[in-house]
Amino acid sequence: MNLLEVTDISARATGPAETSADACCAPLVREPLPADEAETLAHTMKALADPTRLRLLSIVAASDGREACVCDLIEPVGLSQPTVSHHLKILAEAGFLSRTKRGTWAYYALVPGALDRVATLFTAV
Amino acid sequence: MNLLEVTDISARATGPAETSADACCAPLVREPLPADEAETLAHTMKALADPTRLRLLSIVAASDGREACVCDLIEPVGLSQPTVSHHLKILAEAGFLSRTKRGTWAYYALVPGALDRVATLFTAV
Repeated sequence: MNLLEVTDISARATGPAETSADACCAPLVREPLPADEAETLAHTMKALADPTRLRLLSIVAASDGREACVCDLIEPVGLSQPTVSHHLKILAEAGFLSRTKRGTWAYYALVPGALDRVATLFTAV
Repeated sequence: MNLLEVTDISARATGPAETSADACCAPLVREPLPADEAETLAHTMKALADPTRLRLLSIVAASDGREACVCDLIEPVGLSQPTVSHHLKILAEAGFLSRTKRGTWAYYALVPGALDRVATLFTAV
């Protein structure tokens, strides 16, 4: 458990292999959110409530193949490599990014369906 | 400016009367988020990164007419009226709820399009 206690939103789905948006919770506007789901979702939202993490997530998501090397993420946000890696780790623990080590560097890729789950939750139906 | 410096996401639209989802920023996945937009969005996300505020927003959104009296929001979340009012104020300052005083009580209503703007931002296109 990291300091921010960021929780993986995908844990609320039926299993780790489940990535479709409809596996997630009911939209906020349809029924009152139970207390336990609100706790889980708030932790997930905390991962998105930071300007550096939003920029990193956006850069990865807009990259070819929706994947980027940590080495290419340092200059755009103007922070040290340990700081960038720290933010990327929080995004990974929240279920938004996946991490692969290739040679010297770690690569982060957008987890398919992770952003859609957030979008679905806030869609007014 | 309140303590959390929650910023109204609608300020990024063309004007206060603009409420359609497409008035907002480009989805995160389409192009890297500029630093200033990331700051604004992070402040907005902070309003959603709290379990009590998510529950209050959800209860209001799921209520008849997408509006609820503060008096009906205290018992469901089990907190004092000043605490509930504090959280509702943050949601209002972030542009998610609007406030109307009628008689003794304040009523909070879901701002049309506010949640859709968040959903649009996180939609993978």
